[in-house]
Amino acid sequence: MEVTGLTPLITLTTDFGLADHYVGTMKGVILSRCPGARLIDISHEIAAFSLYSAAYTIDQAAPFYPAGTIHVVVIDPGVGTSRRALLVEALGQYFVAPDNGVLSMIVGRDQKHRAWEITNRSLWLEAPSATFHGRDLFAPVAAGLASGTLKASDAGPVAAGIKLLSGVEAQRISPGTWQGKVLSVDRFGNVITNFRAAQFSSIASHPFKLHLSGGEVTQWNRTFGLAGTAECFAYFGSSGYVEAAINQGSAAARLKTSPGDSITLQA
Amino acid sequence: MEVTGLTPLITLTTDFGLADHYVGTMKGVILSRCPGARLIDISHEIAAFSLYSAAYTIDQAAPFYPAGTIHVVVIDPGVGTSRRALLVEALGQYFVAPDNGVLSMIVGRDQKHRAWEITNRSLWLEAPSATFHGRDLFAPVAAGLASGTLKASDAGPVAAGIKLLSGVEAQRISPGTWQGKVLSVDRFGNVITNFRAAQFSSIASHPFKLHLSGGEVTQWNRTFGLAGTAECFAYFGSSGYVEAAINQGSAAARLKTSPGDSITLQA
Amino acid sequence: MEVTGLTPLITLTTDFGLADHYVGTMKGVILSRCPGARLIDISHEIAAFSLYSAAYTIDQAAPFYPAGTIHVVVIDPGVGTSRRALLVEALGQYFVAPDNGVLSMIVGRDQKHRAWEITNRSLWLEAPSATFHGRDLFAPVAAGLASGTLKASDAGPVAAGIKLLSGVEAQRISPGTWQGKVLSVDRFGNVITNFRAAQFSSIASHPFKLHLSGGEVTQWNRTFGLAGTAECFAYFGSSGYVEAAINQGSAAARLKTSPGDSITLQA
Repeated sequence: MEVTGLTPLITLTTDFGLADHYVGTMKGVILSRCPGARLIDISHEIAAFSLYSAAYTIDQAAPFYPAGTIHVVVIDPGVGTSRRALLVEALGQYFVAPDNGVLSMIVGRDQKHRAWEITNRSLWLEAPSATFHGRDLFAPVAAGLASGTLKASDAGPVAAGIKLLSGVEAQRISPGTWQGKVLSVDRFGNVITNFRAAQFSSIASHPFKLHLSGGEVTQWNRTFGLAGTAECFAYFGSSGYVEAAINQGSAAARLKTSPGDSITLQA
Repeated sequence: MEVTGLTPLITLTTDFGLADHYVGTMKGVILSRCPGARLIDISHEIAAFSLYSAAYTIDQAAPFYPAGTIHVVVIDPGVGTSRRALLVEALGQYFVAPDNGVLSMIVGRDQKHRAWEITNRSLWLEAPSATFHGRDLFAPVAAGLASGTLKASDAGPVAAGIKLLSGVEAQRISPGTWQGKVLSVDRFGNVITNFRAAQFSSIASHPFKLHLSGGEVTQWNRTFGLAGTAECFAYFGSSGYVEAAINQGSAAARLKTSPGDSITLQA
Repeated sequence: MEVTGLTPLITLTTDFGLADHYVGTMKGVILSRCPGARLIDISHEIAAFSLYSAAYTIDQAAPFYPAGTIHVVVIDPGVGTSRRALLVEALGQYFVAPDNGVLSMIVGRDQKHRAWEITNRSLWLEAPSATFHGRDLFAPVAAGLASGTLKASDAGPVAAGIKLLSGVEAQRISPGTWQGKVLSVDRFGNVITNFRAAQFSSIASHPFKLHLSGGEVTQWNRTFGLAGTAECFAYFGSSGYVEAAINQGSAAARLKTSPGDSITLQA
């Protein structure tokens, strides 16, 4: 699936933060096993244990990566327990992650995805710890894929019934009313919902109400700079979803909302 | 302008933060279009919408980069409005940024800089969003330059009258008194002014007063470790400017100052 | 000592944070002098001036890197004073750092380490500042090593008596009681002690008491997900040390402890 003669890209998405050695240590493992690996950080500041935020983050970034890219996603509150470790092929790319729903949106994008349970311990570091599978399992598997020493199907048996997060897709609950969720709040305080822009394109020109815990949004604008700095408005975000913002202010603070919150849209 | 046979370096400077997918997504776009691109982060923690901090940051870093480097600078409160997108050639390097003053200090360094307005939509991603030109416009233009598929002059027409920030240079307001600004406050609480060290070299050996909103500084030291941990002192910073610090403490907190504040120097 | 025909890896560990230009500027210096350099960030969010945290961080990461890797470690409260600058060869890798104890744990790992004082000013940037040796000294030395223009022994004279941090190793203070230190608190609030797991393996199956300033720990678990979310427990961390955690909570907050604190273990 490679695009070029270059070693495949390996991206990293974790909740490890950037203060500790964890990310740097994972990179050492990968580069020791695949010296030509090209490493890219997607985010290491995913809120701790937030499967929802991680699922959204990798789903936004991965479609822009070349075929053959290997994505390592380690948000892993169940590390060391019996939760499975997965290798998934989707979108012409690979994803290495714990089986806890963090790949829900990726597998939702590609009905032809394939998944294997990583059981082949010859790939792991010797004497793996019970608490840092990013270093001891996921990094070496990614390095094996990147270096060509590992074929996906050699990772272990086909994995059936992989775990999915609930409520990823908005649902119609009555005529003209949909229930959804806040997928993410970004650095600017913009609120990303799971109402797809393509489905709700009418809100640009017809009345609507977006209800969140701390208030409602009834205005629409095309972009930030066209709004005043006081009003909260909805727009079609770069995410492909309806988002809510205040120009140079925090809509999330105003609307008292955070990822995972239930919301409704009348449109 | 390349130094080596390697693909040119692309640096990124934004206010996107490191928690969200934005930076990782931009990198995917670049690497999909220029697989050999070598990516370097300058900073993604520029204070949100702070053109001043961003102008200072890229001005400090860029002179240390090789000829031919491509710098992508996206602090962009006007995204999606009629603000222009610029490609600037200066210092033997390229700069891709919105036309909002963020390149003020770079163009001030190189009187022979050239600028083009990026109007060639064949470079952009299909169906660009109104809110994420980092991904949809600036990243693909940088990738085009790096891969050699785009010449600077093909980006669009020459751009006249590019926007500049006011007050970047200190001014003499009366004999022996200059008015300036705080350019930056760094992680350690050191205060970087826009008084050039070369111009004010006398303060190392003659009395001076640096006035800030929360106090004044009248002592000079060569470096941190030569001062006590209580006194606030001025020194000639690595920035080339007069800076103020407290050894292992925050001068910015003591002096109650932040980037953009007006200050005066008597010397 | 190189593993491959690739240019050696250069890792960076600093307390410069990620908001300022400092790290990006150092990378520009390195890439200007060694265009093929491959740069990896270990951490730039080391607590300001925290030699202890930095010593622990580089000690955890470095053993996972390939032979020949060059580690630049700049936590440098004494920059510009008479403190020495060091080049150390240990673990088949190189370490460039101020002589302030930050390499204590690395040299403790390799009794055959060698050290030189960096006195050869031909390696430095012209007109070095008194406050940013990361840019002006350590980055160019690392680039020189990576590009092959500098041999370690040409950096300067052999350095005797390099500075070491005290209390890095736990001590027995009475029969069955050891005094140690908190080495690190990670993003999740896990507390990493300096009691080596191999030495205290008995705590998995026999009674023990770990005393910290805000409480004591008497339970052991193999991993996070096997514990309730209320109890604080000890486990054998991926660090190789005894650590204390609360499943999806902060043990450091509960136990009121931070890096450098003295602690005792009865076992």
